[in-house]
Amino acid sequence: MLTVHGMSNSGNCYKVKLALEQLALPYRWIEVDVTGGETRTPTFLAKNPNGKVPTLELDDGGFLPESNAILHYLAEGTPLLPGGRLERARVLQWMFFEQYSHEPYIAVARFIAKFLPPESPRRADLAGLVERGHQALGVMERQLAQEPFLAGGAYSIADIALFAYTHCAADGGFDLGRYRAVRDWLDRVRAQPRFVAMSA
Amino acid sequence: MLTVHGMSNSGNCYKVKLALEQLALPYRWIEVDVTGGETRTPTFLAKNPNGKVPTLELDDGGFLPESNAILHYLAEGTPLLPGGRLERARVLQWMFFEQYSHEPYIAVARFIAKFLPPESPRRADLAGLVERGHQALGVMERQLAQEPFLAGGAYSIADIALFAYTHCAADGGFDLGRYRAVRDWLDRVRAQPRFVAMSA
Repeated sequence: MLTVHGMSNSGNCYKVKLALEQLALPYRWIEVDVTGGETRTPTFLAKNPNGKVPTLELDDGGFLPESNAILHYLAEGTPLLPGGRLERARVLQWMFFEQYSHEPYIAVARFIAKFLPPESPRRADLAGLVERGHQALGVMERQLAQEPFLAGGAYSIADIALFAYTHCAADGGFDLGRYRAVRDWLDRVRAQPRFVAMSA
Repeated sequence: MLTVHGMSNSGNCYKVKLALEQLALPYRWIEVDVTGGETRTPTFLAKNPNGKVPTLELDDGGFLPESNAILHYLAEGTPLLPGGRLERARVLQWMFFEQYSHEPYIAVARFIAKFLPPESPRRADLAGLVERGHQALGVMERQLAQEPFLAGGAYSIADIALFAYTHCAADGGFDLGRYRAVRDWLDRVRAQPRFVAMSA
């Protein structure tokens, strides 16, 4: 059985949980104490030398890190990943967008605003992160005003990847009021079969 | 014919050029004046709403952004992307690592050190970027001490993606002297058939 080494309130880990649930795959979940430093221990670094969750433990005892690589592994051959070469590249386009242009602003703003103490000096970064995060939301809005899902007509792991931190963007100080297409898309994702919410 | 909208001294654009050359695919290259603001013009944003190069123009007039999604599109069905589900996920693991844990430090340090004026306030970021970049190089060193290429035994688009900014890391102030396995790997990449160097 697959085992997820993850942290329940991480959007990157929630991506993997949502895909596993929607694919009806059995799995175990081992909660990792990231804030307590567990991902920097030799035991964890032997699983993932980059010291990050989620890390998927495979049936053969191997490990696969990187949330979006895990999504791709789980979804290949299922309706969550289209079969055509260009269609797959479109899914990956949005997943790389997520990791480079979205997560470093929207997820990091959430982390600072929600999990760091009020006196943290990193709160000075919030204004810049929110500005860049709105750029990412604007790019999503433009796409979702034209198509029901990010990679086109069908729900895919690109939607799972971007739902993870978009649906809780308010935690980082983002007002989604001006992004009507994004909000409608969030509702479409929530309406997908076997959808499960992220842990608070 | 495929058309690359790119900037020659960008590592992300070089990835696409290297893959096209190694796959012996014909292409046109249209140089984009990023520093002059061309990627923020309505004409360019119609090609890629995220305003970044490279953007690949397809035969049918469509556009595909995100360097690593372009690599995947070009390499599917070729020896640069393995056929097995887990093997493909391993390639993507390293490509997501590149965009999240490597490029934002090693490429950004290069940009600041090489292209911004000496008085730029962003030079204050260099020390932190170099520290995080060394973490990424350490993760690569650990893998490349065990395997000849990042995703295992075979050269793949994961190597192209990580070669792009690793080979010029010195531009950002990184000394690769302590990374023997990384340096040997750089030589193995340079020895691949149809290898071309990045424009200075």
